[in-house]
Amino acid sequence: MSNRLEGKVLVAQGGGPTPVINQSVVGVALEARKFSQVTSIYGALHGVRGIIDENFIDLTRETTHNLEQVAGTPSSGLLSTRDKPDEEYCQRMFKVMQAHDIRYFFYVGGNDSSDTVRIVNEQAKAANYELRAIHIPKTIDNDLEENDHCPGFGSAARFVAQAFTGVNLDNRALKGVYIGVVMGRHAGFLTAASALAQKYVDDGPHLIYMPERHFIIENFLADVDRVYQQHGLCTIAVSEGISDPDGTPMIVKLLGKEERDSHGNVQLSGTGALGDLLSNSIRDGLGIKRVRSDTFGYLQRSFMGIQSDRDAREAREAGEKAVQFAMWDNCDGSVAIKRPVLDYSVDYQLVPIENVAGKTRHMPDNFINAEGNGVTQDFLSYCRPLLGSNLPEPHRLRAPMVPKILHK
Amino acid sequence: MSNRLEGKVLVAQGGGPTPVINQSVVGVALEARKFSQVTSIYGALHGVRGIIDENFIDLTRETTHNLEQVAGTPSSGLLSTRDKPDEEYCQRMFKVMQAHDIRYFFYVGGNDSSDTVRIVNEQAKAANYELRAIHIPKTIDNDLEENDHCPGFGSAARFVAQAFTGVNLDNRALKGVYIGVVMGRHAGFLTAASALAQKYVDDGPHLIYMPERHFIIENFLADVDRVYQQHGLCTIAVSEGISDPDGTPMIVKLLGKEERDSHGNVQLSGTGALGDLLSNSIRDGLGIKRVRSDTFGYLQRSFMGIQSDRDAREAREAGEKAVQFAMWDNCDGSVAIKRPVLDYSVDYQLVPIENVAGKTRHMPDNFINAEGNGVTQDFLSYCRPLLGSNLPEPHRLRAPMVPKILHK
Repeated sequence: MSNRLEGKVLVAQGGGPTPVINQSVVGVALEARKFSQVTSIYGALHGVRGIIDENFIDLTRETTHNLEQVAGTPSSGLLSTRDKPDEEYCQRMFKVMQAHDIRYFFYVGGNDSSDTVRIVNEQAKAANYELRAIHIPKTIDNDLEENDHCPGFGSAARFVAQAFTGVNLDNRALKGVYIGVVMGRHAGFLTAASALAQKYVDDGPHLIYMPERHFIIENFLADVDRVYQQHGLCTIAVSEGISDPDGTPMIVKLLGKEERDSHGNVQLSGTGALGDLLSNSIRDGLGIKRVRSDTFGYLQRSFMGIQSDRDAREAREAGEKAVQFAMWDNCDGSVAIKRPVLDYSVDYQLVPIENVAGKTRHMPDNFINAEGNGVTQDFLSYCRPLLGSNLPEPHRLRAPMVPKILHK
Repeated sequence: MSNRLEGKVLVAQGGGPTPVINQSVVGVALEARKFSQVTSIYGALHGVRGIIDENFIDLTRETTHNLEQVAGTPSSGLLSTRDKPDEEYCQRMFKVMQAHDIRYFFYVGGNDSSDTVRIVNEQAKAANYELRAIHIPKTIDNDLEENDHCPGFGSAARFVAQAFTGVNLDNRALKGVYIGVVMGRHAGFLTAASALAQKYVDDGPHLIYMPERHFIIENFLADVDRVYQQHGLCTIAVSEGISDPDGTPMIVKLLGKEERDSHGNVQLSGTGALGDLLSNSIRDGLGIKRVRSDTFGYLQRSFMGIQSDRDAREAREAGEKAVQFAMWDNCDGSVAIKRPVLDYSVDYQLVPIENVAGKTRHMPDNFINAEGNGVTQDFLSYCRPLLGSNLPEPHRLRAPMVPKILHK
């Protein structure tokens, strides 16, 4: 028998958008309609900020067709926030929730958002307000504890792999050193996904630097020099979050200043500075002339038209399962994706929110090579299914060389 | 009756890659096989450099299937070069061409490459060497004279439109100022294509700056301030080639130094510096905190998996037509795409190479708005068909707001 707690469902999105985050909201909205104790389904605009401001839209007055259309649209259809509620903020949220008889709260987000769910849940208990609060995972960084992988990662990884496939072709056509700077503050998963661009044996990225290993500029230059000597070119993937051995992010080291968001995180994205610094190091240190860098930036998380079909389905299911856990099992927590076997199935479990909230999962050691400048076969096996089906593939001419006449 | 000049065909690619440049090479290779006077079809590796070095592959020993696969792959399958031949360079090219009995030369490229074809052709005539030399247009910049539009532009424009569609969604979710820096040295077509991302009335880009108009930082800040006041956010597209009123590229002004390629062009791509400069101007000048910039960089021209189907077909046809002009009409020149009526058909003509070589086409005045910070309906009508079919489209929730209880 399902939970008979009657009242409204509230769903919201927090933190950085992903290409499939709307799938989870739509999963909640469509699944919740199946339970008679749900009187209405509200969506808060701009996350917890929309709860404080009482900015709700009534998703029970949305058509199924339009919900499906929005599910296929990247970024946060309910809009997002970087607000991090404290005790006072939560008390204001409760007042609004009580006034609207909200009894089920689903928050789709990453580490910071899961911490928000944890605080809200504690506050609800302290205030004796009966509330089911469930966190639904999303993050392109793939850095949530308890999860084999997170909704949003597969699609962003697909973008990165397609980008580096093109970069490989471009850097082969006009040879040089190319640096692609990929999102990832503390976890290198997304940067590592660039390795899925490797089809031919000499394809890049030849070097991959993740925040899990210290970044030492001398080693970096030696690596680039070696690859460049061997191939006459070098393609590099770098996490925006790489740090030097004392833990200072390279970008802070470069800029000499930092900008922080309200969660106290240093701003890494939305600037090309890190790529430019590394390019200059190569030009100055190795005397290579053609050095280029791109910072993939926001395209990675919101590009229109690139969704991993598997990622989209799992994001939907995570939303559906959150509702089912709340309704059938009457419990709180965080939905987590488990992978019972490597090749390939998933299972959704509800785990204690404390296991996820505010914590960061890193690349396990068996995913990173010994030199700290690339990934392992284990990582490739782990990551490949997440990118979804019909990944576009490059092709090379394989016509034979013509015998030389003049330059024999 | 077709031209009976017997000998080999040589095809090569020069300059920056495009997503469909291989379509033109494959068009040449497959069409040339239909003419019995063609003894073999060679591809030069790395453009004119491959001719000097006698690095040819024999495309008559390629399978049709693999040619079709390569046609669907972005970037230059025959690899490319930035070399710009002078008289002595051309004489070395002739020696090689004569030794291999090459009588048909097809060079796929932009302004600089068309100038190469012009020089080669003049040299051939001066040396009394019978040679058909035809330039096949390609450029994502869309800046070739005589052409309504150029193969490569439609696919790059599609990438830019899809990118800005995502950017619109992202910048709506977490409001701020966003600057996307788009390729385009002297011509603003590709930057202008960002306007195709506008679906909803308040969608960005709200401001578009093209190299055809002087960039005046005070006007820019006033524009941003006005949009930000109105929408609480501002999405901006900027050409990498924008210059101040005295003609100095903004990036040179910023960096205080310049890097040039062998054609004497200032290096604009492969650095995030321009976006960072403009971001800082907004932060300092307007006091807006959340300002982000991305430089789309090489992804625009080589991203794996985004081709405009129309662009791909036209690039193929341009290659086929080049062969047909050489064989049936026995003449030299540059293939140009004409558009007899606005909506939508194309015609291929062979125009004198001098009309194209080394020249740059700019956005016509009727494509740019009076304020110089956006595009007109004429441009939208011109550009839309080039992006191809099934352009992915964003969708918004349209559920009604819930009446407020506490904040009435």
